[in-house]
Amino acid sequence: MAETLETPPEADSDAVWLATPFVQQLIKQMRAQDSHGHWDGKSDLQLLKPFILTPEERRAIPLLGDPDPETLWHLEIFYNAIAVAIERETGQMVSPMMKMHHEGFGRMVLLAGRLVVVNKQLRDVHRFGFPSLAKLAEAGGKFLDEAVAMIRTYPDVAQYGA
Amino acid sequence: MAETLETPPEADSDAVWLATPFVQQLIKQMRAQDSHGHWDGKSDLQLLKPFILTPEERRAIPLLGDPDPETLWHLEIFYNAIAVAIERETGQMVSPMMKMHHEGFGRMVLLAGRLVVVNKQLRDVHRFGFPSLAKLAEAGGKFLDEAVAMIRTYPDVAQYGA
Repeated sequence: MAETLETPPEADSDAVWLATPFVQQLIKQMRAQDSHGHWDGKSDLQLLKPFILTPEERRAIPLLGDPDPETLWHLEIFYNAIAVAIERETGQMVSPMMKMHHEGFGRMVLLAGRLVVVNKQLRDVHRFGFPSLAKLAEAGGKFLDEAVAMIRTYPDVAQYGA
Repeated sequence: MAETLETPPEADSDAVWLATPFVQQLIKQMRAQDSHGHWDGKSDLQLLKPFILTPEERRAIPLLGDPDPETLWHLEIFYNAIAVAIERETGQMVSPMMKMHHEGFGRMVLLAGRLVVVNKQLRDVHRFGFPSLAKLAEAGGKFLDEAVAMIRTYPDVAQYGA
């Protein structure tokens, strides 16, 4: 019995995270960007590589000036994937809005009707990324769960005017 | 008795609109931009001139390309003034977020906690302005009243996490 409680080998564990609703949407969003099919040969795991930064990789990115456009683009895809996953779960349309103030500081919200279902103050956007697939999946899954709970708690605000 | 129902002379009418909570905040926001005191000699009415466009002035502005930065700046001041007026009325902090998609289309929201208290789809932003002081005051006042009503209807959403 004890074996089932042990950490599974990494490949098995990856497969579990890759199958979660948020990560599935993130993979779809990434594949949707690839209009020329350059990434057809890439595995899902390879496709998510830009979202994963080791501590060393993080530290190597300077926090000067504005974040890299590529990094901002991945940040937007991350929150778009959460938005679409919320839509699939609740049937409620969700729109992202981002405001970058200066040098990697900003705010991201996901809106369902008149409800702010995700509210995230952004900082050090230059270093946007997660230490592992597990952490990436957990972060997205947590936003998704909280947003779904918000919509179920305040359905009249989420459906306001609809 | 009948006289009191007649439209007042224009100057009297202007004074009434200038005294409304939204227009008072709009004047304050404009004066706050004037750090060098260039506008000290301007009347409140003169200060609001950039928000007022005659139909001819509107039509003369081409809808090509991105809106003028000056126009975008006035648009932001208009919504900032609404935000501050809501704060004064409800004691609730309000933050604006704007997203310009392309060529004068976009969205502006004012957020109080987890509540979207003003939700405005923007179009033809190039021609942002109102035909008269009365229309300007009415537009801002309507947003203000609706936002205050939203906050009073959904206080737990507006104070979520606070």
